[in-house]
Amino acid sequence: MPEYIDFFVELLGPEHCFYDEQSLEFYSYDHTENLSFKPLLVVKPENSEEISQIVKFCNEKTIPITTRSGGTGLMGGALPIHGGIVLSMERLNKIIKIDIQNYQAVVEAGVINYQLQQALEPHGLFYGPDPSSWGSSYIGGNIATNAGGLRAVKYGVTSASVLNLEVVLPNGEIIWTGANTLKNSTGYNLTQLFIGSEGTLGIVTKAVLKVLTKPKTDITLLIPFHNLEDSAKAVTEIFKSGLLPCSLELMERNALEQTLLHLDENSIILQENVQAHLLINFDGNSQEELLPLLEQTIAVVEPFPTEEIYFADNETDKNRLWELRRKVAEIVKSNGYTIEEDTVVPRAELPNLIKFAHQLAEKNECKVVCYGHAGDGNLHIRFNHPKYKNSYNNPVIHAMLYELFEYIHSLGGTISGEHGIGLLQKTFLPIVFSKANLQIQKNIKKALDPKNIMNPGKLIPD
Amino acid sequence: MPEYIDFFVELLGPEHCFYDEQSLEFYSYDHTENLSFKPLLVVKPENSEEISQIVKFCNEKTIPITTRSGGTGLMGGALPIHGGIVLSMERLNKIIKIDIQNYQAVVEAGVINYQLQQALEPHGLFYGPDPSSWGSSYIGGNIATNAGGLRAVKYGVTSASVLNLEVVLPNGEIIWTGANTLKNSTGYNLTQLFIGSEGTLGIVTKAVLKVLTKPKTDITLLIPFHNLEDSAKAVTEIFKSGLLPCSLELMERNALEQTLLHLDENSIILQENVQAHLLINFDGNSQEELLPLLEQTIAVVEPFPTEEIYFADNETDKNRLWELRRKVAEIVKSNGYTIEEDTVVPRAELPNLIKFAHQLAEKNECKVVCYGHAGDGNLHIRFNHPKYKNSYNNPVIHAMLYELFEYIHSLGGTISGEHGIGLLQKTFLPIVFSKANLQIQKNIKKALDPKNIMNPGKLIPD
Repeated sequence: MPEYIDFFVELLGPEHCFYDEQSLEFYSYDHTENLSFKPLLVVKPENSEEISQIVKFCNEKTIPITTRSGGTGLMGGALPIHGGIVLSMERLNKIIKIDIQNYQAVVEAGVINYQLQQALEPHGLFYGPDPSSWGSSYIGGNIATNAGGLRAVKYGVTSASVLNLEVVLPNGEIIWTGANTLKNSTGYNLTQLFIGSEGTLGIVTKAVLKVLTKPKTDITLLIPFHNLEDSAKAVTEIFKSGLLPCSLELMERNALEQTLLHLDENSIILQENVQAHLLINFDGNSQEELLPLLEQTIAVVEPFPTEEIYFADNETDKNRLWELRRKVAEIVKSNGYTIEEDTVVPRAELPNLIKFAHQLAEKNECKVVCYGHAGDGNLHIRFNHPKYKNSYNNPVIHAMLYELFEYIHSLGGTISGEHGIGLLQKTFLPIVFSKANLQIQKNIKKALDPKNIMNPGKLIPD
Repeated sequence: MPEYIDFFVELLGPEHCFYDEQSLEFYSYDHTENLSFKPLLVVKPENSEEISQIVKFCNEKTIPITTRSGGTGLMGGALPIHGGIVLSMERLNKIIKIDIQNYQAVVEAGVINYQLQQALEPHGLFYGPDPSSWGSSYIGGNIATNAGGLRAVKYGVTSASVLNLEVVLPNGEIIWTGANTLKNSTGYNLTQLFIGSEGTLGIVTKAVLKVLTKPKTDITLLIPFHNLEDSAKAVTEIFKSGLLPCSLELMERNALEQTLLHLDENSIILQENVQAHLLINFDGNSQEELLPLLEQTIAVVEPFPTEEIYFADNETDKNRLWELRRKVAEIVKSNGYTIEEDTVVPRAELPNLIKFAHQLAEKNECKVVCYGHAGDGNLHIRFNHPKYKNSYNNPVIHAMLYELFEYIHSLGGTISGEHGIGLLQKTFLPIVFSKANLQIQKNIKKALDPKNIMNPGKLIPD
């Protein structure tokens, strides 16, 4: 029993404080490899005021706070590596307001992304960010990592949809960061500073989100390329032609083969000469509006050798195509591949990045698989090493990643496009940031959280 | 002659250092009311390395640095109120690269917005932000204020188009803030922290900008409303119908009357029963694509009493319509109206805001004029007081503005959408930010610029 238990029990009631072995074990994990770090206590406050009290107390006593949202993070952001308390946001799960006049939603940070989408649906609205974890990840967690998703290429990542945040600061004070407006040039952009800060500067408790009119229809194309690099080149050509797909995903053959094994017989047939698929979705308000976009896309990819293009405009066919993409991460993981690296480069560098990843794998006698949000230049890369399945603190995998990330930096890219840095990637930050840049980041952390109680050991290199 | 002149002459050559009366006078102004503050010295470095040397020297000697871009700011951001040096960015005027593969432009901060647009044009590209000052304002100045413009409703303000920044920090070190990628979840978002920070945290020297395919065509509608509040209500209805105009501007009758007096006889006729114009632009790749949008717009405004709608699809007619909007600020200013307030509210609150502005004016025996980027909820409001033409340190105008801004805050709005805070608005920040929020902003300033040499006296309240 942690020595400071009385304070929490009095504040939250015993039913919202947990220190039994089973609870500590459950909250010792997120979706990051096989890592487990037990907290001393798990607390489940109900609102910002309770969180404010908790943070004040922890600040005074210098108790580490790891804020936990849906626990779907892949970089260890929600792991309580220094013990202390895990502060679960699960009870802050209210959609406070859907403002259909202003196209805004006000939510508590523990609302699940997909629940918000469902609540918006009857109003003909949607919220842009749709990370693949959306069935269980929280809006607050999406904000913490600046999560992306399939639609980010058209609708932007989380940062493009957040207007204003309520935050409990490391001293326990509660602030709103901005205003509920589409434009804002009033003071430093604290809203954007908290987005992507992974719980290290404060706890986001409420968010005012921009929502959009849901397009009435959409259509999906699957283009099977004979050549992997061609598929990546075609991505650039699509944007150069002025097209703006809602989603533009790439999967290479190795990913397709593994995934198809787990899907039913009605699924896609993967011809022998196909090395990669591009999966493209266009949304709009009528089929008439979409047809010219399809024609334009076909014309753009015409110079590249491909198999016949599939089209899907009904839900069954679309689901069949997207199931492949949605299931790839979990299937590839179960086949022993390392964690999903979250590399991002200027879009036209994708062919170089893919080539490099394959060369690197070959040199290290690994298998490799690439897939992801090619429209954003955001490619997930995973290795299957004959010996090591996890990357954390593994010098062999680290050496490979160093080489990969140094190359990515040389292309103008960086090491995370949507997953964040957390515990696993912080050691690589000096590849992409100079000493002076990292010093500024450290100074900001220190200015906001001088006692280093908010998610210590994350995002900032030691 | 400033005592530290030798250092600058040696570093930059005497031809780039100015302390004659005429130069000091010229650089004592920007476009802010009638304010004038003379620096001790004006320097015109050529590159980041020279700026780094200057900043190191000024940091050591605690000499205030006011970075100056195009000098078109309206809030006094470029005024050297504490003397010291004005660092003019005018020689950092190179477009370093137009990357047509990745849709990126790399520019020095002193490039004029419109020059960049012209350089992009032959490639079929454009840069989203188009502040009305674009003929003379610099990209660096646009970044300093997070400038908007007519197209922001579709393409976003400056923050949406900046991928990465080179910044000279207050200690003279040079950093890049991020990466040249469309997505980035790698560390704190320093890029967004510097955007809108008005030269108080460092000097932006280069920017990597996102550019877009220029739509092939566009069409403008002018809708003359019988009722001012109806025009603002129609704005909400347009977005609710799912339309996304490229520009959506509102001008009320008072603004139209003043402006039309200065335009030639071929211009618009303002019928007696018209109280406001909405000026709407749709862009796209074909007339076929645009026609349904026009029809939809007409259907949306049909319930409101209006005069006949004008359409303009050729350059002459479009220019005739947009000339009204472009000239309003300068004409209204010459008629003795106070500075352009830059209020921004959730869009559906525009009718309330306009009503309040008129009541406030009446109560204070002023005239008032409202116009601006209604599609973003960003309304410029100006008063014509019988006695006072300027707002700076004027207790009568301040009292009115306090009342206006407190009301705006109650609507979920804020005091600047695209102009920034600078010198003139900092006194009003406690209306929209809590003490705890302002303390965080002060802490960030102190963490980055402990000696307060970068544009001291701006953005942060005293």
